Amino acid sequence: MPPDAVRMAGDAMALVADLATITDESGRLTRLYLSPAHRRAADLVRERMEEAGLAASIDAAGTVIGRYEGRRPGMPALLLGSHIDTVRDAGRFDGTLGVAVALAVVAELARQERRLPFAIEVLAFGDEEGVRFPSTLAGSRAVAGSFATSTLAERDAEGITLGEALRSFGCNPAAIPAAGRRPEDVLGYVEIHIEQGRVLEQADQAVGLVSGISGALRLGLKVAGVSGHAGTLMMPERRDALCGAAEMVLAIEEIARSRTNVVATVGRLAAEPGAVNVVPGTAEFTLDLRTLDDAARQRVLNEMLRRCAAIAGRRGLELDHETFYDQPTTFCDAALKAGLANALAGIGLEPIEMQSGAGHDGLALAALCPMAMLFVRCTDGVSHHPDEDVSEDDIQMACAVLAEFLRAFEP
Amino acid sequence: MPPDAVRMAGDAMALVADLATITDESGRLTRLYLSPAHRRAADLVRERMEEAGLAASIDAAGTVIGRYEGRRPGMPALLLGSHIDTVRDAGRFDGTLGVAVALAVVAELARQERRLPFAIEVLAFGDEEGVRFPSTLAGSRAVAGSFATSTLAERDAEGITLGEALRSFGCNPAAIPAAGRRPEDVLGYVEIHIEQGRVLEQADQAVGLVSGISGALRLGLKVAGVSGHAGTLMMPERRDALCGAAEMVLAIEEIARSRTNVVATVGRLAAEPGAVNVVPGTAEFTLDLRTLDDAARQRVLNEMLRRCAAIAGRRGLELDHETFYDQPTTFCDAALKAGLANALAGIGLEPIEMQSGAGHDGLALAALCPMAMLFVRCTDGVSHHPDEDVSEDDIQMACAVLAEFLRAFEP
Repeated sequence: MPPDAVRMAGDAMALVADLATITDESGRLTRLYLSPAHRRAADLVRERMEEAGLAASIDAAGTVIGRYEGRRPGMPALLLGSHIDTVRDAGRFDGTLGVAVALAVVAELARQERRLPFAIEVLAFGDEEGVRFPSTLAGSRAVAGSFATSTLAERDAEGITLGEALRSFGCNPAAIPAAGRRPEDVLGYVEIHIEQGRVLEQADQAVGLVSGISGALRLGLKVAGVSGHAGTLMMPERRDALCGAAEMVLAIEEIARSRTNVVATVGRLAAEPGAVNVVPGTAEFTLDLRTLDDAARQRVLNEMLRRCAAIAGRRGLELDHETFYDQPTTFCDAALKAGLANALAGIGLEPIEMQSGAGHDGLALAALCPMAMLFVRCTDGVSHHPDEDVSEDDIQMACAVLAEFLRAFEP
Repeated sequence: MPPDAVRMAGDAMALVADLATITDESGRLTRLYLSPAHRRAADLVRERMEEAGLAASIDAAGTVIGRYEGRRPGMPALLLGSHIDTVRDAGRFDGTLGVAVALAVVAELARQERRLPFAIEVLAFGDEEGVRFPSTLAGSRAVAGSFATSTLAERDAEGITLGEALRSFGCNPAAIPAAGRRPEDVLGYVEIHIEQGRVLEQADQAVGLVSGISGALRLGLKVAGVSGHAGTLMMPERRDALCGAAEMVLAIEEIARSRTNVVATVGRLAAEPGAVNVVPGTAEFTLDLRTLDDAARQRVLNEMLRRCAAIAGRRGLELDHETFYDQPTTFCDAALKAGLANALAGIGLEPIEMQSGAGHDGLALAALCPMAMLFVRCTDGVSHHPDEDVSEDDIQMACAVLAEFLRAFEP
């Protein structure tokens, strides 16, 4: 490992460790978008950016932006970054690692007084996890110029609107539209993120390329039968909505298992009236379906809905469904990906590619500019959990790959 | 149909109709135990008892008791009755019909000045439905001397204790132990109730005998797997608690369907964390299992738990269960049942027998004295629903059977 990679990784790990102490809930790491802990984290990141020699500020949606000028001031910028908001009871690497590695690599450039033929901006977004408000990606959408001002009226669980939360954070919501970047000022967006899966672990490699961010469909399904007395309604007479829903859950699982690169999840299920001694009359559940291939996703969904309808028909139940989220796959930019593949090769790694099943800020940025991502191996694929872990060696590798990627642009 | 049956049924239907207007919720029939509507209903029943020539009072647990003396005052009593509390959005016949038929039949005896070699008491219990407080059968348990004073501290959904609710109703909770009847003062308890099933409908008969009240087991089951990201956790790596629970629900249904006279219900199911985009890490559900044969019930449960454990094992899930309710079967008294069978035969009906899957006040009374029940056909087996219905002809038949049963004790 080159000595600068060791130093960069040391910087990155120090920032990750410092951010891990900034939480809204004592005893566990929880840093929701625009919370007091998010504010303290944003201030710390801005301070570290300034110490590293970047010009830092916080934009109207709470994103911390640190700019390192290119050979001349005002050149178009390559954006590097990730997010610093977290889920509840989070691990310390999801999002944070990408910000810390990007800042460490740019700080090293600044330390060595190396300038590139473009500016670099390091961005630390909020609202990637989408835990607090119904919508998500407010930070990256604001930068991409696709922030919907209608979402300012959305409320969190305590009734606070997004607009109010922004003002409490110190932001001016009215300035969000002006925070959007012009495409001609931006060259691309590259994000480093933990894999949240086991492809790299199984391939025994520290860092790999992302082919794209899988599209997702989310549906609500409602099964209606007839409720009745648990003691008097004999089994052959029942039209039990929960038994029907259970059979549908298993059919969905079976179809997803029979395909490769398809994940389907029933995350929520409720039976009504929900009493121990009443045969359920209705059952509602959600379906989250993800594949890289948009057409395949729709075909798989159609097959699932056909199977569910057949189950409903056989059991004398009614089935309704509603799609409430439909996100097509976002592919990474071929040219940026080729640059990252060269960087991997440059430090002796294979250009392994994997899809991202999770959404990322890149979903929003892809509407503004070419987008690419690197994944870093995380232990056992665990994320969104305090056990989330990344080795020091792998963080050094991530720093080395990003530094190598940038080095290619120097003459 | 004898003319006195027509008259008795007319009286009974008038009381059912009057009670159907007494509700705590406008637009639907809801009369929870010790509510204002329950108080008005109890007052109306007492008034009608007094008009019929019975000595009526309301005991310390809110049960209306009307006594019709035998040949001499103070003779032991045969108890007839049912309950006047209801579920929410109830039908008009569940419980109420049994009170109304008993009172109509005794009123006819009084009208004809016929005295039996024992007293008759008509009882209108509260708390048979068990909707308001965690425990149930407060009224019939008080009469049976098995009321647990510890339940006075139980609270309803609004935080009102049973003791407070009794006082608001006008009762003195301290007098409940003294309200218990001595076994030597009570000959037996006979209840008429709607069937809440379709055995009589399928046999094309108005009234039938109850063999016993099915015992019930109620369990909570908890399935523990590993939660994870819906986008990144591939299908083969999942240990999805909800999919495991769904397979268990279907196994329980299949085992119950493969037996006769077994009903098994999963009425409640919840997955945690319950987010659309998170693979469920735990799932909890309830099981309500009823059969007439106590030994068979335990065998069926054991088979269900073995199947669920096998499913959990195959899926890498943990399974725990806890039994929180275990009520053995209560059989109807053979001598009383023979008397009722004779009465059925006396008016030309077959002595059809069926089990009661639902619990009734007879569960509590059986600890005090011999207990028997008659079921009356109800349309489509519907109960606990505004569509609950009993035909006028069938109410006449029920009156005729009960009158015939009593006639056998006259010289």
